[in-house]
Amino acid sequence: MSLDVVALAAQLIGCRSVTPADDGAMALLADTLTGLGFSTDRIDCGPDGSQTPNLFARLGDKGPHLCFAGHTDVVPPGDGWVHDPFGAQCADGKLYGRGIADMKGGIAAFVAAVALLKAERPLKGSVSLLITGDEEGPALHGTKEVLPWMMENGHRPDFCLLGEPTNPDRLGDVIKIGRRGSLNAWITIDGVQGHVAYPHLADNPVHRLLPILSDLTARVLDEGNAHFAPSSLQVVSVDVGNTATNVIPGKATALLNIRFNTEHRGDELVQWIRDTVSAHAPRAQVEASISGEAFLTEPGAAVAALSEVVLRHTGQVPRLDTGGGTSDARFIAQYCPVAEFGLVGATMHKADECVAIADLQALVLIYRDYLEAFGL
Amino acid sequence: MSLDVVALAAQLIGCRSVTPADDGAMALLADTLTGLGFSTDRIDCGPDGSQTPNLFARLGDKGPHLCFAGHTDVVPPGDGWVHDPFGAQCADGKLYGRGIADMKGGIAAFVAAVALLKAERPLKGSVSLLITGDEEGPALHGTKEVLPWMMENGHRPDFCLLGEPTNPDRLGDVIKIGRRGSLNAWITIDGVQGHVAYPHLADNPVHRLLPILSDLTARVLDEGNAHFAPSSLQVVSVDVGNTATNVIPGKATALLNIRFNTEHRGDELVQWIRDTVSAHAPRAQVEASISGEAFLTEPGAAVAALSEVVLRHTGQVPRLDTGGGTSDARFIAQYCPVAEFGLVGATMHKADECVAIADLQALVLIYRDYLEAFGL
Ligand SMILES: [Zn+2]
Ligand SMILES: [Zn+2]
Repeated sequence: MSLDVVALAAQLIGCRSVTPADDGAMALLADTLTGLGFSTDRIDCGPDGSQTPNLFARLGDKGPHLCFAGHTDVVPPGDGWVHDPFGAQCADGKLYGRGIADMKGGIAAFVAAVALLKAERPLKGSVSLLITGDEEGPALHGTKEVLPWMMENGHRPDFCLLGEPTNPDRLGDVIKIGRRGSLNAWITIDGVQGHVAYPHLADNPVHRLLPILSDLTARVLDEGNAHFAPSSLQVVSVDVGNTATNVIPGKATALLNIRFNTEHRGDELVQWIRDTVSAHAPRAQVEASISGEAFLTEPGAAVAALSEVVLRHTGQVPRLDTGGGTSDARFIAQYCPVAEFGLVGATMHKADECVAIADLQALVLIYRDYLEAFGL
Repeated sequence: MSLDVVALAAQLIGCRSVTPADDGAMALLADTLTGLGFSTDRIDCGPDGSQTPNLFARLGDKGPHLCFAGHTDVVPPGDGWVHDPFGAQCADGKLYGRGIADMKGGIAAFVAAVALLKAERPLKGSVSLLITGDEEGPALHGTKEVLPWMMENGHRPDFCLLGEPTNPDRLGDVIKIGRRGSLNAWITIDGVQGHVAYPHLADNPVHRLLPILSDLTARVLDEGNAHFAPSSLQVVSVDVGNTATNVIPGKATALLNIRFNTEHRGDELVQWIRDTVSAHAPRAQVEASISGEAFLTEPGAAVAALSEVVLRHTGQVPRLDTGGGTSDARFIAQYCPVAEFGLVGATMHKADECVAIADLQALVLIYRDYLEAFGL
């Protein structure tokens, strides 16, 4: 059974699956995979048990087990499109549509790769897909919740390939083998309001906040390491909201974000923030939230094989990178090694998101050859 | 001709002269002073020439010339009054009403003092009153604009007595012989907005602002001097308004106030702020406004005589003070020596503003004796 990657990608684009909407995307995938012989499970999660659509599909029950992860949800189209964001128009050798790069095209390419290999010969081992409809949203009930379900049901993969658009400019630019961690901290300082003419009767919370933020920003968290850029703390907001020039305010807040590499763990950094704050303002409040820990998939046989296959089909040796924002790989890395490779992301989240049809077709071959290299 | 201080104060309270309203207060004063033989001039100033009511009244044309300065405008009554804020109710030996302490009571006491002395004998020298209806407001078209008019029209006083409620607790506590200067500065830093994952592509304005504010707050402006407390810089607001934890903001602002003593001039401090800002953020904008320079009336014969008269009628040696906020004395000090003495200010700007009727009567005698001591 053969399967046209452009046709499947176009069908997926036609589903208006702006988070948290699904609009039939999961059913389309499940049907297609069932047709290829996969057994499929819907693991819809959320407060009432059915809000976030998630799909797990597996073909084969032996090892080695390669899992492909991805998301069918997309960000809102926004304004400024020349092409219909849900029309899947082809023009100039490109396929246009919201989510085609991020990452319906990657999903379509992987499904087409399985179909292609399976049309040649029976697969060895197991191949599975972990697809969520909540990656662009809060991501609380997507990949994060499917993974424990997979573990409980005997579906722990040996390796996971995430199909995010990792290439900035050209197919073959970048394989992501890790991501930085991310945490947010909200600092609230309650002082004592007063008149500027009587500073000794007030306790200016801004004056307490300044040395805290100076200390926090002064620390060189690290110099980076072999695979990661240096960790970075950014004070993204400081707010008081006082317009009365003769009033010492009663309250000041600050909001920080840290993007940290594998030299740190989130809880260690949160403790450092708490200690720094309480050294200057014992009564201050710190709320912190760790969005994800840093992780690295040490370049080994699986990553080397992926690099070789990418080189074979693109003529480029892909850079092994850990930059950029977070992805669902942060959840997967807690269970198995994960690498990311997909289409070119230059137009993702923008108007007229598109990919070259030649890239889509090349990605099918890359994924096919990788399945084979992995032992499928 | 005798004049009852409580009756005049009550009439003034009855005028609902919440800045910028006058409600007949100036006319009442002008009529009363005309009745005492003063020549009066209305010097109403403002954008259209008539917005801010001001009165200058003078009796006599020889020296020495003592000027009494004050304001008839009051702050809004606000909530929480037991007594009618404009009802001039007497209870428990006190007279209640918005502005009775700050400073309709002081004006009534001075007018009564002139009447009292004049009933005894003809006055020597000259006595004048500089009364404005814009002290609690922006104060742009009040005392500040009447003073040049006085100079142009041959009314430069030898000494000025401002009737603000200088006493914190008891009549006789404090004579003010100076005030600190005050300036505001607004700092605006434009950075380059970006994603926290790519800090090298952004320019975080908060990170530029922090060392500026640290430098500004770290400097000990001075240790104070014989007559003044140390100067004080307060950062009264810092604002960014960014709630997106993954976004480095494009702009940050800070608002400062400095209360400074006679060790500094406003323009020197503004230049220091500008230099400190541009050292860390060359493209930053600084807007500054000097509300008033610090001034000191060196304690000499005129202040000594005032202290002696206050001691005579209150049993207290008044402290010569320069603390607290600004007053119109900052304008007067540019033309002639000025000291401030009035009622007890404990309830000023609060609900149920009141003064002891005994204090009102004592203040009449203090002012009367001071007129005499001054050579009137
Ligand atoms: Zn994505
Ligand atoms: Zn006043």
